[in-house]
Amino acid sequence: MTRPTHLTGVVPPVCTPLTPDAEVDTASLIRLVDFLVAGGVDGLFVLGSSAEAAYLRDEQRRAVVDTVVRHVGGQLPVLAGAIDMTTPRVLDHARGALDSGADALVVTAPFYTRTHPAEIDRHYREVAARTGAPVYAYDLPVAVHTKLGHDLVLTLAADGVLAGLKDSSGDETGLRRVIVGVRGKAAGFSALTGSETMVDSALAMGAHGVVPGLGNVDPHGYVRLYRSAREGDWETARTEQERLLALFGMVRSGDPARMGMSSSALGAFKAALHLRGVIDCPATMLPQIPLDAEEVRRVEKHLATAGLL
Amino acid sequence: MTRPTHLTGVVPPVCTPLTPDAEVDTASLIRLVDFLVAGGVDGLFVLGSSAEAAYLRDEQRRAVVDTVVRHVGGQLPVLAGAIDMTTPRVLDHARGALDSGADALVVTAPFYTRTHPAEIDRHYREVAARTGAPVYAYDLPVAVHTKLGHDLVLTLAADGVLAGLKDSSGDETGLRRVIVGVRGKAAGFSALTGSETMVDSALAMGAHGVVPGLGNVDPHGYVRLYRSAREGDWETARTEQERLLALFGMVRSGDPARMGMSSSALGAFKAALHLRGVIDCPATMLPQIPLDAEEVRRVEKHLATAGLL
Amino acid sequence: MTRPTHLTGVVPPVCTPLTPDAEVDTASLIRLVDFLVAGGVDGLFVLGSSAEAAYLRDEQRRAVVDTVVRHVGGQLPVLAGAIDMTTPRVLDHARGALDSGADALVVTAPFYTRTHPAEIDRHYREVAARTGAPVYAYDLPVAVHTKLGHDLVLTLAADGVLAGLKDSSGDETGLRRVIVGVRGKAAGFSALTGSETMVDSALAMGAHGVVPGLGNVDPHGYVRLYRSAREGDWETARTEQERLLALFGMVRSGDPARMGMSSSALGAFKAALHLRGVIDCPATMLPQIPLDAEEVRRVEKHLATAGLL
Amino acid sequence: MTRPTHLTGVVPPVCTPLTPDAEVDTASLIRLVDFLVAGGVDGLFVLGSSAEAAYLRDEQRRAVVDTVVRHVGGQLPVLAGAIDMTTPRVLDHARGALDSGADALVVTAPFYTRTHPAEIDRHYREVAARTGAPVYAYDLPVAVHTKLGHDLVLTLAADGVLAGLKDSSGDETGLRRVIVGVRGKAAGFSALTGSETMVDSALAMGAHGVVPGLGNVDPHGYVRLYRSAREGDWETARTEQERLLALFGMVRSGDPARMGMSSSALGAFKAALHLRGVIDCPATMLPQIPLDAEEVRRVEKHLATAGLL
Repeated sequence: MTRPTHLTGVVPPVCTPLTPDAEVDTASLIRLVDFLVAGGVDGLFVLGSSAEAAYLRDEQRRAVVDTVVRHVGGQLPVLAGAIDMTTPRVLDHARGALDSGADALVVTAPFYTRTHPAEIDRHYREVAARTGAPVYAYDLPVAVHTKLGHDLVLTLAADGVLAGLKDSSGDETGLRRVIVGVRGKAAGFSALTGSETMVDSALAMGAHGVVPGLGNVDPHGYVRLYRSAREGDWETARTEQERLLALFGMVRSGDPARMGMSSSALGAFKAALHLRGVIDCPATMLPQIPLDAEEVRRVEKHLATAGLL
Repeated sequence: MTRPTHLTGVVPPVCTPLTPDAEVDTASLIRLVDFLVAGGVDGLFVLGSSAEAAYLRDEQRRAVVDTVVRHVGGQLPVLAGAIDMTTPRVLDHARGALDSGADALVVTAPFYTRTHPAEIDRHYREVAARTGAPVYAYDLPVAVHTKLGHDLVLTLAADGVLAGLKDSSGDETGLRRVIVGVRGKAAGFSALTGSETMVDSALAMGAHGVVPGLGNVDPHGYVRLYRSAREGDWETARTEQERLLALFGMVRSGDPARMGMSSSALGAFKAALHLRGVIDCPATMLPQIPLDAEEVRRVEKHLATAGLL
Repeated sequence: MTRPTHLTGVVPPVCTPLTPDAEVDTASLIRLVDFLVAGGVDGLFVLGSSAEAAYLRDEQRRAVVDTVVRHVGGQLPVLAGAIDMTTPRVLDHARGALDSGADALVVTAPFYTRTHPAEIDRHYREVAARTGAPVYAYDLPVAVHTKLGHDLVLTLAADGVLAGLKDSSGDETGLRRVIVGVRGKAAGFSALTGSETMVDSALAMGAHGVVPGLGNVDPHGYVRLYRSAREGDWETARTEQERLLALFGMVRSGDPARMGMSSSALGAFKAALHLRGVIDCPATMLPQIPLDAEEVRRVEKHLATAGLL
Repeated sequence: MTRPTHLTGVVPPVCTPLTPDAEVDTASLIRLVDFLVAGGVDGLFVLGSSAEAAYLRDEQRRAVVDTVVRHVGGQLPVLAGAIDMTTPRVLDHARGALDSGADALVVTAPFYTRTHPAEIDRHYREVAARTGAPVYAYDLPVAVHTKLGHDLVLTLAADGVLAGLKDSSGDETGLRRVIVGVRGKAAGFSALTGSETMVDSALAMGAHGVVPGLGNVDPHGYVRLYRSAREGDWETARTEQERLLALFGMVRSGDPARMGMSSSALGAFKAALHLRGVIDCPATMLPQIPLDAEEVRRVEKHLATAGLL
């Protein structure tokens, strides 16, 4: 088993390609993984929000981990989301993912229920203790409606409960406090940004890696950005980031009068992967609204502008 | 099968008693059901928020429905929550509950994901169409972080998609718009309030029933309140409601510095049921924080003041 | 001076009619006051949210109080909003209003700044102590972004700091806790609902009065509703409330793609007053967007349906 | 008049020192201005949130601008906040500030009232047109409860309505979109970050300046940080930023059980300025809660750690 020891670099949250009848398209998933690996990524994160984890049935979640773990065969670490409302339900998903060979777990705070820092602390300690696996905290207030406090993350890091943080909160100062706070105090802790648009900044602050949904569409871009930053070539990093910032505009391709942000953003990523020939079908899960032809053309335009067609 | 035709009256969201090792205590669950039925309730809603549905593992959810349906044997309708993030996952829970004999489903809007009225509309239509069961919309913005618009509910009611609404939104005007709006337009639609504290008002507005978490602790009180209201004795209804308003203060027994509102409120309900001798063990699921002795004494005081000890 | 001793009944938040060049139209204001008094109202609340207090310049605020106080000449109590961000600024407005002869002040919690219950407590105590006037707390979280806790209100009531509460929070349970909590503990405290749509319920719970923005348009309706409730004729009260609920739909006359809720609701009230011949000009203050002809027709339709044209 | 042409550099939002009886302490204010100028700052922003503008009475606001403008005598640009709920009230403050000689205005979106992008657009166009002064948009959702969309800002910039943006929203991606969007399209537009903790990142993205509240306490630190960034010495900039990030921890000196964030943060800045000998009295305006001795010691400790005592 490839246990991630200090995970760094580009770790895209892998989309889940579907068949037209809403089943996992494993052939397309394998092609997507190959595309990402060929792009130079350093790890794979399956069953995250970009993977439509919130929409996948349990056996579909299982199929995704099985397929990806078997295909990469230890080449690079595979992190799996164990996304559910509370500890007991998260533990069930965690066991499934670990049985399928995932190297680490990505876990949010409890949601749906009204929670408290003391309960979030207990949640992570239980998940870590009962699975024995590396656990990455997933800070996604837009979904979870709780922000992980940096104090809590730093305590859990220092106590060895958390292996890392995927910060998709948009609170760059909070991420910075974690980055500065773990120095010399939590060896091997990986602070990863989930931002698509602040990667150069995050890396300049000392973030160890990046988990960008848009990395599905343009892994090469994020790998170039990461490498430029690591070499201290901040000018190139910034230019690459600005190109990706423009490309990220594709997430607003869907008409907000017709659909929510999940339909629009995930629909755009899948349309882009379809247009780039990586996956067979751009379908998203129910009850998301599919992009129409005009909206897909907007995605196409973004790809063209970014030089990806 | 006892299909609820125009569900009315007191339909408590049944708590899920647990053993000390966090498994469903079916003996206590049966005693609780008997206690509620003896109290005069008109239906049972299992696997709601008060049931800790967010914390129960899939087989525990199944055990709850199995136990209750088998025990009541068609005496009164059993509604089951099918609480999960999106349509495909909700459908899996729905099938489980219906296989176990539930008479109807209670379903929230999608959560965790960023959604849209058009997607919520699609969600309910798919659940209703694919299960063929009566579907009650569960409006609980404190958990779901979306408010169900009354326009959407009225459209779904008129189209026969929804059998009713459990409104726990705290937006009494919205509930009123639904109550007024379905008159003569959606025969059999049940507008139920999930409030513990505005039941007389809701019934005066024309609500058909009430689904109070506190009804676990004092079903007799809510049944008296409901019957007074039905007889037009608003003064008695108000007096009863004010007694229950004071009793409902128990949900703040837990110290907010130590725990969240779920731990405090569900912990108090279970402590009260334990103190009243209905269930064997007041435990709640992980990662909730248990009430300490001092906090349990606060619950006890509330019971004493309300004449329930 | 007419000090309000236990204010009860219908106390509309008086709109501020404007000239086409955005000055206070005192002639129309006097006609509006006469219209309300003829409708049977029990008091007048000037410089509230419905008065566009947030938009009026200091001398305009002063002109409104001067005009109304002089015109009503002690016939019925005049409450004046002293709406600003913090204590020192509120005190300046309060002194102006009291100098002009207002009988009482209506004051929100601090806003714009990030506040705390201890600061809100201090705020009300300072305003009451430094002005010596009756102070009504104005609970309007949609504007102030803080909810006044019922515990805080009850403490301030018991300590004689607050003369009453205008509750526009939409939290009927909180209002109920105040109503029940002041009984026998704060003689003369007036619990007023700011709701347009839950007046029968609030009165049934024991609220002392009602401050409905829609009362500008249909004072007679709210007076009938209030009187029916006081006579215990809840059926008539409910029917009247349902008529007013439908009429209140006028606040959504403005196209939400073009304007915010303030433009739409205040624009509708003023259009209605103009259509009913009470005020000369339906203009609202900058930067609100005026209703267009189509939107005014929607207001007209609501008036027609309610039998007010 | 010193019109700011492409404002750049460090522009601290100047605190307003008070006497023990809550009047503006002009002698201390002048000393603070001298301290900042000696620290190398490039401009001064008076009557912002750090200035307690929300708490200052109109004549106090006027005294602040008078004092500062007269004292700096055109040496460096003075921007003045015109903070109020809506256009007409903002215009009154704007005229006062411009009469006192302010070089530019800083204006938020409307608050308290429920607003809309079309109204915000109108608001800024009216303020700019009616004053003829350079207008900086102040994006402070924590106070205003509306986020300025980057599209709106870019339109207003391109149309010459806005001279710049002070972005205190915490949304670094939004700031980035403005920075990239104005390039070549709005010459002279200044994108300023209001962050204390992301200054190096903002400058690396292309921000033109920084408006940090903490710059009152340590202007030299922010000037060093700015100059390092301008010289492309990102390593020094980061080290300085990390020192300032730790120093910024002083804003949490106040006990959150006793006071809100305004009391704590502004109290800490003033305590620090008092401890550093710059101002005579650390008092803050009503209804803020003063720091107690223990809390002031926390501020002192932060100063000591940062080498500022």
